[in-house]
Amino acid sequence: MFSRCVGWDALNALSIITYEIDQKHKTEHRKHFIEFLKHVQSKDLTCAGAMTDVKGDRSLRPSEQADPDLYVHVVEKRDDGIIVRGAKVHITGVVHSHEIIVMPTRALTEKDKDYAVSFAVPTDAEGITLIVGRQMGDLRKLRGEYFDLGNFKYGAAGHEALVIFDNVFVPWNRVFMCGEYEFAGQLVETFASYHRQSYGGCKVGLGDVLIGAAALAAKYNGVLKASHIRSKLVDMVYLNETLHACGLACSYEGFKTSSGTFRVERALKRVQNYGIIFICF
Amino acid sequence: MFSRCVGWDALNALSIITYEIDQKHKTEHRKHFIEFLKHVQSKDLTCAGAMTDVKGDRSLRPSEQADPDLYVHVVEKRDDGIIVRGAKVHITGVVHSHEIIVMPTRALTEKDKDYAVSFAVPTDAEGITLIVGRQMGDLRKLRGEYFDLGNFKYGAAGHEALVIFDNVFVPWNRVFMCGEYEFAGQLVETFASYHRQSYGGCKVGLGDVLIGAAALAAKYNGVLKASHIRSKLVDMVYLNETLHACGLACSYEGFKTSSGTFRVERALKRVQNYGIIFICF
Amino acid sequence: MFSRCVGWDALNALSIITYEIDQKHKTEHRKHFIEFLKHVQSKDLTCAGAMTDVKGDRSLRPSEQADPDLYVHVVEKRDDGIIVRGAKVHITGVVHSHEIIVMPTRALTEKDKDYAVSFAVPTDAEGITLIVGRQMGDLRKLRGEYFDLGNFKYGAAGHEALVIFDNVFVPWNRVFMCGEYEFAGQLVETFASYHRQSYGGCKVGLGDVLIGAAALAAKYNGVLKASHIRSKLVDMVYLNETLHACGLACSYEGFKTSSGTFRVERALKRVQNYGIIFICF
Amino acid sequence: MFSRCVGWDALNALSIITYEIDQKHKTEHRKHFIEFLKHVQSKDLTCAGAMTDVKGDRSLRPSEQADPDLYVHVVEKRDDGIIVRGAKVHITGVVHSHEIIVMPTRALTEKDKDYAVSFAVPTDAEGITLIVGRQMGDLRKLRGEYFDLGNFKYGAAGHEALVIFDNVFVPWNRVFMCGEYEFAGQLVETFASYHRQSYGGCKVGLGDVLIGAAALAAKYNGVLKASHIRSKLVDMVYLNETLHACGLACSYEGFKTSSGTFRVERALKRVQNYGIIFICF
Repeated sequence: MFSRCVGWDALNALSIITYEIDQKHKTEHRKHFIEFLKHVQSKDLTCAGAMTDVKGDRSLRPSEQADPDLYVHVVEKRDDGIIVRGAKVHITGVVHSHEIIVMPTRALTEKDKDYAVSFAVPTDAEGITLIVGRQMGDLRKLRGEYFDLGNFKYGAAGHEALVIFDNVFVPWNRVFMCGEYEFAGQLVETFASYHRQSYGGCKVGLGDVLIGAAALAAKYNGVLKASHIRSKLVDMVYLNETLHACGLACSYEGFKTSSGTFRVERALKRVQNYGIIFICF
Repeated sequence: MFSRCVGWDALNALSIITYEIDQKHKTEHRKHFIEFLKHVQSKDLTCAGAMTDVKGDRSLRPSEQADPDLYVHVVEKRDDGIIVRGAKVHITGVVHSHEIIVMPTRALTEKDKDYAVSFAVPTDAEGITLIVGRQMGDLRKLRGEYFDLGNFKYGAAGHEALVIFDNVFVPWNRVFMCGEYEFAGQLVETFASYHRQSYGGCKVGLGDVLIGAAALAAKYNGVLKASHIRSKLVDMVYLNETLHACGLACSYEGFKTSSGTFRVERALKRVQNYGIIFICF
Repeated sequence: MFSRCVGWDALNALSIITYEIDQKHKTEHRKHFIEFLKHVQSKDLTCAGAMTDVKGDRSLRPSEQADPDLYVHVVEKRDDGIIVRGAKVHITGVVHSHEIIVMPTRALTEKDKDYAVSFAVPTDAEGITLIVGRQMGDLRKLRGEYFDLGNFKYGAAGHEALVIFDNVFVPWNRVFMCGEYEFAGQLVETFASYHRQSYGGCKVGLGDVLIGAAALAAKYNGVLKASHIRSKLVDMVYLNETLHACGLACSYEGFKTSSGTFRVERALKRVQNYGIIFICF
Repeated sequence: MFSRCVGWDALNALSIITYEIDQKHKTEHRKHFIEFLKHVQSKDLTCAGAMTDVKGDRSLRPSEQADPDLYVHVVEKRDDGIIVRGAKVHITGVVHSHEIIVMPTRALTEKDKDYAVSFAVPTDAEGITLIVGRQMGDLRKLRGEYFDLGNFKYGAAGHEALVIFDNVFVPWNRVFMCGEYEFAGQLVETFASYHRQSYGGCKVGLGDVLIGAAALAAKYNGVLKASHIRSKLVDMVYLNETLHACGLACSYEGFKTSSGTFRVERALKRVQNYGIIFICF
């Protein structure tokens, strides 16, 4: 369940942006997106959302990097589709997702046109390699140990991976952006807005568990009534409820876009983003 | 306009609590409250809300204080009404309000029964003395000076006063709580919930003005593009929008009480309270 | 007493920098400085230190400003001395000082050469105007009121003034820097180092009084044993003792400069500067 | 080297407290301590300092716990020495130390008399079991992996262990406190003062490495000139230099105790303690 949120946010964002690109460029991105969406929904597939590139020198744009592959980009356009190359990093849950939805990671200029690319590929497509990040104690389960395994049944649930795209082929009906660089920033922001909104539920639920665990640990140590402990628990509750309030507010203030899809209110989104700094990891 | 918010919050809270007291004690508080509300609405009166007592030793309850007048209390019950005594402090805008709505300032026990009193009196009722708090530069206007006067037309707008009740008579039809100590804490919390909710609009508007003024001062000094200045302005926006989000969330999640009056959601209220610490003054 | 610290810091800093300027430029600044120092010491004079210019557009250098008088500068060099023009702002205690010691407020380039000027003038020299800043309640004493006067005997002790230099003449034997722009930054930093060091005593003493007053107010309100109050008092003590420790450390690590004057250790000075942000006003 | 600091601090503290106990109780603790000190110095032994007990219910004193072994205590006094029982937790570097110096972990009352015990034992004494705490990636070295091993040569250098004392015998000439409960608090505070002082060197050196590593990472990412990055690095420097200043100040202000041993100034010590919260782990 955990990993589906990023994919959902990607689907929502693409539903809006493909429409807007089509309006301007007379492309067929939204038609392809809707086909893909039906595929996902009818088979109940899990999608990983892949946005963050490895980036290289942060003071340079994608097209200015010493190595052209530091951001995912189109290396060839063919009649039947495109060939992409690069890598996306810290991709949560991609190991157990059926599909990867790729999006640009920043606003782009005309010179970065080849980097303005969004598409979906099956996780096991040819040319894709996943390098899973190490986690604390991740070898314990393999050794048959029985505690501090993270999630009891599945081990450390939050696997993140570096996803390498080594000349991966993507057919046109799975391409949602290809060269329309002026929409890249908007796609990032729209995706991020949904992603922060969903934190108002997801991370707050996680926060509730953390607060409860902290309170229980305090109780076991005989310090639950100590005022400096209560003060810290209260601060955790404040922060958690503030996140929840921001999630609710940006949802209630949501509006229907011209694509027909509803999106969350933006300004409040940025605020929520801020609270996230404290609780996210 | 500024001073009306406290009165509004008091009216909303009493609308709920008088109903609940009547349900339990078969009193007529709500009937009296509704009469008073009609009086206020039909004549468009401004009401000050008076909650904070002078308190004395904070480690003791009202009935335990060396001086019985450190919290407002009933000193005599007569056929036609009650006589009250004590003082409320930091009462915003009372100088230019028609009516004062008095409420207890904390949860009370049976021993504090005489302190469980809520009522409305005209500001110029016999026995009431207002001692207005000094403010920075408050003598300037009197000397005919022309700048740094606060509000240009009215001087420092936010007058606060110490309101002394020296055996003030209140007729029964203006008494909304009298001895029902177990509802005191609930009245305080209900009032405070509305009062924090309204901050999600009022203080955020004030915050917008402060942020704009700060940005303008930065521009005049040629430092608006300095990153440490921008960073501070962004922090101000974050805090302000968070307050706004909390105000919206607790309102959207509001619910109809058995009295028929809607009230804001409580948990989220407490959160907003927290943000207020930073911006209120 | 209060106002003397800035003057002391200026004397210490000039004692070092005039020596270094003389070494490089074969000037006689240090001789003039020593004469002035003897004058001050033999007559026990109070000196105000004047560093902060009004500055105008902070993104521009002194010589780039629309108005050349936004930083104090030399407008004429004569046989007997120099004519200076400009204004220094927020000059503490200048109203009750015998002499004003003027220094540049920032590092300077060759184009700002005329702004590289340091000198001493009597506070009542021709062409000097002091505009004293208003303070809270500063009219009360004049009205014969008897409380909230600040210092009981002298009223608000910390007068600050805008000091305007309207073509003020300064004889050569009171000029300590005149055009040696490359020493301006060093003078500012040396002055500031002493000034922060002295805070390790002065502001910490003030902090002790504030902490004691806060504790006393808590005691009077019956909340001295409340843990959230104690926690705040402890934080105040921590901050205050940290300042004291930084003042001690930079003094113990002080070293003899080639001028013969000892100066405080620099790196630790910057640290102390940081703590000051919290306690200074 | 790393692990020796705790032992040094224990030696310094015991040098003072054993003298003071002897003065009051005519005991021979200091003589025994000096013998032990000569043994350590002549053979260049590494000593672990063991203070923190497992504690159980923090709201109860040692003698009030359900399990008497939650704090290390004397279970038997014999002609040749004492038998001790309990466990000390989070004992840094004990795995590679020759000796363990045990001290009480809190102030004690007469009822906790049996818990007022300090002594030294070889790490491999009969009845001692070390349970080493797991660390992130601690199995990697065993699998022959070659990166993210922590210290390249020794792996994760900071081993901490739970040290169980299961009826360990300690001869009288290695006992430094036995029943003198009124000195327990003083021993803890004296030890802690030295321990925080040494952080003014040790942790600041570590801080320098961390700051350098952070700056290098920023440089590799092309963001070293980004103002928000510089601002964070500057904050790290401030904190680190403040710690250093506090370490210097409490050392310079150190004084000779009646035992002949110098100790650091206390008030400033508490301050340093505060800074440590931010950097220690």
